[in-house]
Amino acid sequence: MSVRVGIAGVSGYAGVEALRLLLAHPHAQIAALAGGGSAGGAVSDSWGALSGLDLPPIQPLDGAGFGEGLDAVLLALPHGVSGGWVARHRHLLDQGTVIIDLGADFRLRDPAQHAVVYGAPHAAPDLLPRAVYGLPEQHREALRGARLVANPGCYPTATALAALPLVEAGLATFLVSDCVSGVSGAGRKAGPRNLYCEVQGSVVGYGLGGTHRHAPEIEQILGRPAVFTPHLVPMIRGMLATVTCGLSRMVTEAELRERYAARYEGHPAVVLRDEPPATADVRGTGMAHVFVTVDPARGVAQAQCAIDNLGKGAAAQAVQNLNLALGLPEMAGVVRVPLLP
Amino acid sequence: MSVRVGIAGVSGYAGVEALRLLLAHPHAQIAALAGGGSAGGAVSDSWGALSGLDLPPIQPLDGAGFGEGLDAVLLALPHGVSGGWVARHRHLLDQGTVIIDLGADFRLRDPAQHAVVYGAPHAAPDLLPRAVYGLPEQHREALRGARLVANPGCYPTATALAALPLVEAGLATFLVSDCVSGVSGAGRKAGPRNLYCEVQGSVVGYGLGGTHRHAPEIEQILGRPAVFTPHLVPMIRGMLATVTCGLSRMVTEAELRERYAARYEGHPAVVLRDEPPATADVRGTGMAHVFVTVDPARGVAQAQCAIDNLGKGAAAQAVQNLNLALGLPEMAGVVRVPLLP
Amino acid sequence: MSVRVGIAGVSGYAGVEALRLLLAHPHAQIAALAGGGSAGGAVSDSWGALSGLDLPPIQPLDGAGFGEGLDAVLLALPHGVSGGWVARHRHLLDQGTVIIDLGADFRLRDPAQHAVVYGAPHAAPDLLPRAVYGLPEQHREALRGARLVANPGCYPTATALAALPLVEAGLATFLVSDCVSGVSGAGRKAGPRNLYCEVQGSVVGYGLGGTHRHAPEIEQILGRPAVFTPHLVPMIRGMLATVTCGLSRMVTEAELRERYAARYEGHPAVVLRDEPPATADVRGTGMAHVFVTVDPARGVAQAQCAIDNLGKGAAAQAVQNLNLALGLPEMAGVVRVPLLP
Amino acid sequence: MSVRVGIAGVSGYAGVEALRLLLAHPHAQIAALAGGGSAGGAVSDSWGALSGLDLPPIQPLDGAGFGEGLDAVLLALPHGVSGGWVARHRHLLDQGTVIIDLGADFRLRDPAQHAVVYGAPHAAPDLLPRAVYGLPEQHREALRGARLVANPGCYPTATALAALPLVEAGLATFLVSDCVSGVSGAGRKAGPRNLYCEVQGSVVGYGLGGTHRHAPEIEQILGRPAVFTPHLVPMIRGMLATVTCGLSRMVTEAELRERYAARYEGHPAVVLRDEPPATADVRGTGMAHVFVTVDPARGVAQAQCAIDNLGKGAAAQAVQNLNLALGLPEMAGVVRVPLLP
Repeated sequence: MSVRVGIAGVSGYAGVEALRLLLAHPHAQIAALAGGGSAGGAVSDSWGALSGLDLPPIQPLDGAGFGEGLDAVLLALPHGVSGGWVARHRHLLDQGTVIIDLGADFRLRDPAQHAVVYGAPHAAPDLLPRAVYGLPEQHREALRGARLVANPGCYPTATALAALPLVEAGLATFLVSDCVSGVSGAGRKAGPRNLYCEVQGSVVGYGLGGTHRHAPEIEQILGRPAVFTPHLVPMIRGMLATVTCGLSRMVTEAELRERYAARYEGHPAVVLRDEPPATADVRGTGMAHVFVTVDPARGVAQAQCAIDNLGKGAAAQAVQNLNLALGLPEMAGVVRVPLLP
Repeated sequence: MSVRVGIAGVSGYAGVEALRLLLAHPHAQIAALAGGGSAGGAVSDSWGALSGLDLPPIQPLDGAGFGEGLDAVLLALPHGVSGGWVARHRHLLDQGTVIIDLGADFRLRDPAQHAVVYGAPHAAPDLLPRAVYGLPEQHREALRGARLVANPGCYPTATALAALPLVEAGLATFLVSDCVSGVSGAGRKAGPRNLYCEVQGSVVGYGLGGTHRHAPEIEQILGRPAVFTPHLVPMIRGMLATVTCGLSRMVTEAELRERYAARYEGHPAVVLRDEPPATADVRGTGMAHVFVTVDPARGVAQAQCAIDNLGKGAAAQAVQNLNLALGLPEMAGVVRVPLLP
Repeated sequence: MSVRVGIAGVSGYAGVEALRLLLAHPHAQIAALAGGGSAGGAVSDSWGALSGLDLPPIQPLDGAGFGEGLDAVLLALPHGVSGGWVARHRHLLDQGTVIIDLGADFRLRDPAQHAVVYGAPHAAPDLLPRAVYGLPEQHREALRGARLVANPGCYPTATALAALPLVEAGLATFLVSDCVSGVSGAGRKAGPRNLYCEVQGSVVGYGLGGTHRHAPEIEQILGRPAVFTPHLVPMIRGMLATVTCGLSRMVTEAELRERYAARYEGHPAVVLRDEPPATADVRGTGMAHVFVTVDPARGVAQAQCAIDNLGKGAAAQAVQNLNLALGLPEMAGVVRVPLLP
Repeated sequence: MSVRVGIAGVSGYAGVEALRLLLAHPHAQIAALAGGGSAGGAVSDSWGALSGLDLPPIQPLDGAGFGEGLDAVLLALPHGVSGGWVARHRHLLDQGTVIIDLGADFRLRDPAQHAVVYGAPHAAPDLLPRAVYGLPEQHREALRGARLVANPGCYPTATALAALPLVEAGLATFLVSDCVSGVSGAGRKAGPRNLYCEVQGSVVGYGLGGTHRHAPEIEQILGRPAVFTPHLVPMIRGMLATVTCGLSRMVTEAELRERYAARYEGHPAVVLRDEPPATADVRGTGMAHVFVTVDPARGVAQAQCAIDNLGKGAAAQAVQNLNLALGLPEMAGVVRVPLLP
């Protein structure tokens, strides 16, 4: 059995990562590609590296046909664009096509909040109730058979997987999530923030004061306030969330690790580590490596989660969600072994 | 059908890359692992990133049993060590086990030259005639059914794939191969040459004056002299050979490209590019991207070949050779799509 | 006027940075160099880059003479070694020589705590009361004329400059300092933690659970508990402290910035920024760039301080302290303009 | 004595490097700044890192006054722009102002060749005869008192300093210069070639086939043909030229080194090394580290020159030329000690 999948936005980083994964997926085939500016050309026009591969041409997003006859569509488009596309192609959902939005348009449940955070009214507020938030470690059952999936943001994924067991156990007083991300999270559009000479050898925070768009998404997952600070570090891929959690009662490291082990049993994308994970440990994979410890002198727990921002933070999580939605083995096509070194 | 493969030297960079590839190989299974210092432990002791994977334990290289019952053994060991191991386990060859040496011990055909270049007498000179040099683009037929394969060096692979069509056509007067390599080529042993702070933001040449060990290997492939200069650049993986070739007669770029196309037709690991390839174009793959042009004003051709030094330059080429030796599809398990970005 | 300065440990990163700064210092001259393993050789044996410079030979640390006749000695030695050296050369202090220990041996005031944190009894506990903690922004007056200076750790410097105004104003409930550091902080000794291929493209935390040696030093400066988590990021130099501070009462961003401006007026190494500083903004300098904002929805202030871990975090701060101790202009020889890009 | 210097183009990489150097120059002061798009603002608008420094405002390039009353003007502008500016401000030359063009507009002596190479007629062909090519190791005497200086390109500088002694001795048959450059050479304008995620972890050649604009400049210096191939490597600063030179007669390494020593005696920016230099050895400096050896088996000499492309390859060489033109000590303000590590 092989499902027919289309990808929109293959000239961007998340889109091409989805392409890479699906080309090696044992039960999927790339049946169609679409793009905005890249439409009408070949993938190798955007990615010279892919010269020599036999791939479908890039169709216009809204031309006749992209989306039709597919089992699933992955949208790796700017926010606003994907929501509009789904609004215009909502008949696909009714036909049973799975639509997975790697962008932000179906993540926040409240359209009013969405409008504030993303600076424009939601393109399809009536579809929001049909969207399932695609964090399998929180919503696996709802994802089975889902037709519209809101693929989570990278920072929310990393923060949630580090913090959820603490929050669910009612252990957290304050929560501080300091995160670092590789530069690919900023996308492929040229700008001062992603010029080599500005990024290399330098770390910088951004979105301080709770102004990053992922802050409300994190709090929606956790169901409580959390301080969130993202940083850009000089690497292409990788994300590390370091969550410091004030403890409402003292716990031992052993108790915490047992709790994490219980929480993540049966969740195949999560690996518990007994030492702090490096982001390279998950490079190119769809895995999340999670570590937890305690600082008894200061009354806090500290949990970390390392993901590949383009993997578990984007395309690999999308494939995991696609598998769940279509009834395929959950980890089919999700890479487990990182590129070492 | 699934062949049983063992890897020796899995705590090193080439060894773990072989492990990564074989874990995803559709017709192979990792049946045994062996190591020197790492023997007796688990792979995750050397590679925390691989925690949670179900892998065989690391046996001693020379303990009872490593090598027995396997269809193939990949040796990712220091030079000298692999030759000695093959000498001691030569019965495996007679039993039909394929041995692929990723090290240097069976590359030079002349044991006297080997002794000079590697500073010690060859451990098994009598086996040298049985070794096939594992560059499929030169020796594919001999590799089919081979039992002892000398997997080529990374610089020789890149230089050869850039230069062979020029040399074979008798076009070359002088040949200059300037190469750059990522740092993983220096191996995992700590030393000033591979400390982050010494490598980062810096390029340095080494082995000038024809003193690098790959110089005679290059000339053995090409059957003629060639100047070869390697450089270390601040990246983990990747190798680029830039070959400048004095032309014995003037040719056009079109003629050269036609010649390259003819030469590499039917060679699935080679992709001809119409612009200079970046090493990132082959990151994590077993592909070689080749480009050729001409500088008519100065009477030279210039050819480039980009490979991943751990891929087509080591482990992926070993898998390609394993496939040829065992009659599997040549590119099974050889990654074609790079990690982008 | 030119003071005569000696440096011990010039083959290491902090030592050679001190050398670089003092060679350009308008009122200082390099009068002597000393080392452990490097003694007997030339600086260019350790640093080929410095070939062609006319520098004193490297004397043994404890040979006849190093330290004698100098106005100041900078010790860039492993902890334990510098304390022992000062103990054996305490007569220099009495002769008026300024000794600045870039290591950790005179930082913690309590010898019992020192013994626990550094795993060995202090080499000269009787000298601890004579040591001035060399954070000019906290102890400038005591540093004027000081003879024994404990140059602060890099993480404590960055955290303190970010957090001090909040703490001194009594605004802080909880304090969380998440820090990232370039790899040069790990020193020049080869080990898995500083191999290029392990570090590049990867971020990793360490010392979680309050186990890093700088944790008590931070709390000594601040006079209160603080959670501290260091991370290693793939860059050579640079450090960023991101301090999240629970607020005991609500304040505005404007009020905080005014407070920071007042606190750092007259402190020439501190620049207040109105946007988050990048570590590259201080690359190669002795400056600290400080930023503060507030997250009113979550009741926290967030302050950041970017320094060069080898600059304001080590050698440049040592030069600043040397200037204060010897009555030179405080910023003489302290670089203000970074290497851009 | 302090000369008054103006810099045009301070928002770019070469311009801000000139600013950094001149701020520390013992005999110069920054008297004026000018820019195109950045005019009307402060330097800190372009370079947040320079917040807190007291600098002149950025004037329009052609407004009333920039250039007047200055002893020297450094132009760090796009090619075409600087030539036009000099044409419009030629009276400054007559008034004795030194104009140093860091761009390409006065490098090629032949205006017809300039028009072909740069794709537009020269803006001031009549001024070309007054321009001195600013390679002090070739034209020092002409530079003393010069008023219009064509600051050399980075690749020509590195290639020339490696190759000149071989060429001048009549030893060269063929010449192949393979060069690598850090990314800052591509300038600060955003484009796919200098995006972090495209550059990092990757090497790529460009301008093959003799099409790079520096090819004719190299041949103008050397007075003979040379094959030149530039590559972009993942580092901010640094350039290495590896010159392979066919030998017209056999020479020993000792003879070559003696020849180089004689050639560069009295040239303070050149350091001869007895091992291949790393580009980090000159990071942030105005120095050129040169190495030469011989490959007797293949009948070639190999010479390398490492420079900082923004230092000896641009701004530091401009300062050296400024010193020569104005009669200041040649190396005043030219950094000799690199940022280590």
